[in-house]
Order: sequence, then structure tokens, then C-alpha cells
Amino acid sequence: MKKENLTDHDRVCAVAPVTVAPLKRHVFVCNGKSCTEVGSPAVKEAFRKELSERGLLFGKPAKGGSFKGSIVLTDCSSVGFCAVGAAVLVYPDGVWYAQVEAEDVPESVESHLIGDRTVERLALLKIPAIVENPEK
Amino acid sequence: MKKENLTDHDRVCAVAPVTVAPLKRHVFVCNGKSCTEVGSPAVKEAFRKELSERGLLFGKPAKGGSFKGSIVLTDCSSVGFCAVGAAVLVYPDGVWYAQVEAEDVPESVESHLIGDRTVERLALLKIPAIVENPEK
Repeated sequence: MKKENLTDHDRVCAVAPVTVAPLKRHVFVCNGKSCTEVGSPAVKEAFRKELSERGLLFGKPAKGGSFKGSIVLTDCSSVGFCAVGAAVLVYPDGVWYAQVEAEDVPESVESHLIGDRTVERLALLKIPAIVENPEK
Repeated sequence: MKKENLTDHDRVCAVAPVTVAPLKRHVFVCNGKSCTEVGSPAVKEAFRKELSERGLLFGKPAKGGSFKGSIVLTDCSSVGFCAVGAAVLVYPDGVWYAQVEAEDVPESVESHLIGDRTVERLALLKIPAIVENPEK
């Protein structure tokens, strides 16, 4: 299906409230087969509940979110942490957490998402920040 | 199912080759209903092919990747760009692209993923980098 693209920037923003939200972070919970088997759906639900209760979750109010939320929470497909799930990725920090369980979520929210301090005992990988090309 | 966690850091890395890959970026293609209807699977396949041909795709060789690849490519669930799909997110840059079509992919790879220059005509949102708390 070929769509008709929107070209007016204001019109695009009007149909996508996320563009004007005060976004700070994006949390991905892996929904690959291995991560799912070790409880990633419960991990995602724990994030949803914790972020919702604190008013931090971006999204529709009917799903516990707010359009003024600062944190986006979504699934992602397998990232290669299959043996050490559940995998949780926090961007733009670039921190990949392994072996996350639902009971680790309150600490992750408090320390990392609110306090800006990585939970070192669960962090297995960090993708460094990118310096944008100045010759753009 | 309660799993037995791996506690030896070296052992964890051995079972997850991604931990020792020279990762630079993570590209997410939205697989939500709306994005899928406007061609997000073709967009993802275009990224897979383009990155694979250039030796940049992280992943199993059987799927066109390399364990020395610098770019991870996965799906993600809906991010709220439902009216302006297909949505493509590039992290850790925090750039959210809207209305991406398969034919935009070679330019995106060349300009952004290789040249570190955002494709401004498609970029709709940028999540700024986080300054880590120094009191960790």
C-alpha cells in the first residue's frame, strides 16, 4: 500500500503527540522466545506499572500512560542476549541489562530512570554515545 | 520458570557474543499494526540487506550478519507514530524517523549510520543525550 505522505511539519506533530512529549528515555524489553520463557512479559508489566504509578510512562491514559510522560516503554525483538535474558535496553544511554527479573524493576526505575545511575550489577553492555558529524 | 542466573561475568560474555561486538548503533523498525500496513517489513528488510552487504550488520552469519558487525537491527512495538509510519528509531542518537520507505534506506545508511549525519527530511523527533549522574 502506497501512502500519501504528510509534508506539513505542524500537521505531522498534531497527529503524533509523542513528538511534543518531554521524552527522556526509551526502555525496551526483549520479547524474543528465550527472554519470554524466563519472564520478560512480567518484567515489562512491572515497568509499566512502576512508571505509570510515578506518572513517568508516555502513552495513552487508558493504558496507564500520559502524553506528558518522559519514558517510552516498548517491546523489541531478540538482541542476542538469548542465554542471559530477560534483556532490557535503556536508550539513549545505551545500557543493556541482562538477567532482569520483575523484582529488579523498582530498583532500575529508582536508580537509573530517575537517578541517572546505571544498575551496575545487571548491566552487561554499553553502547557509547555518538558524536555527531560537524560537517552536516 | 525460575532460571539459574549466571554470575561469572566472563561466562556471561561467552554465551552472548553481542557483549564483545564493536557495537555503534541500534536501529529499530516499528512492527506495530499501522507501520506494518504502510510497509515497515520492507523497510526492515531493506536495512538488513544494505547493512549485510556492507558488513555492518551484527548477527548470525546464516542471517546475513557478522559477530563483528557494529549495527544491531531489531523490531520494536508501537511508539506512537501510528499516523506517520513507518517509524524507524536510531539509538544511541535518539533520532526518530517518520514516514520511512524502503527506498529511503540506502540514504539513511550512507548518511546517518556511516556518515553520522541525520537525514533531516525524515527526522521528526530527537531524544537528547543523558548526562550520567556523577554521584554514582
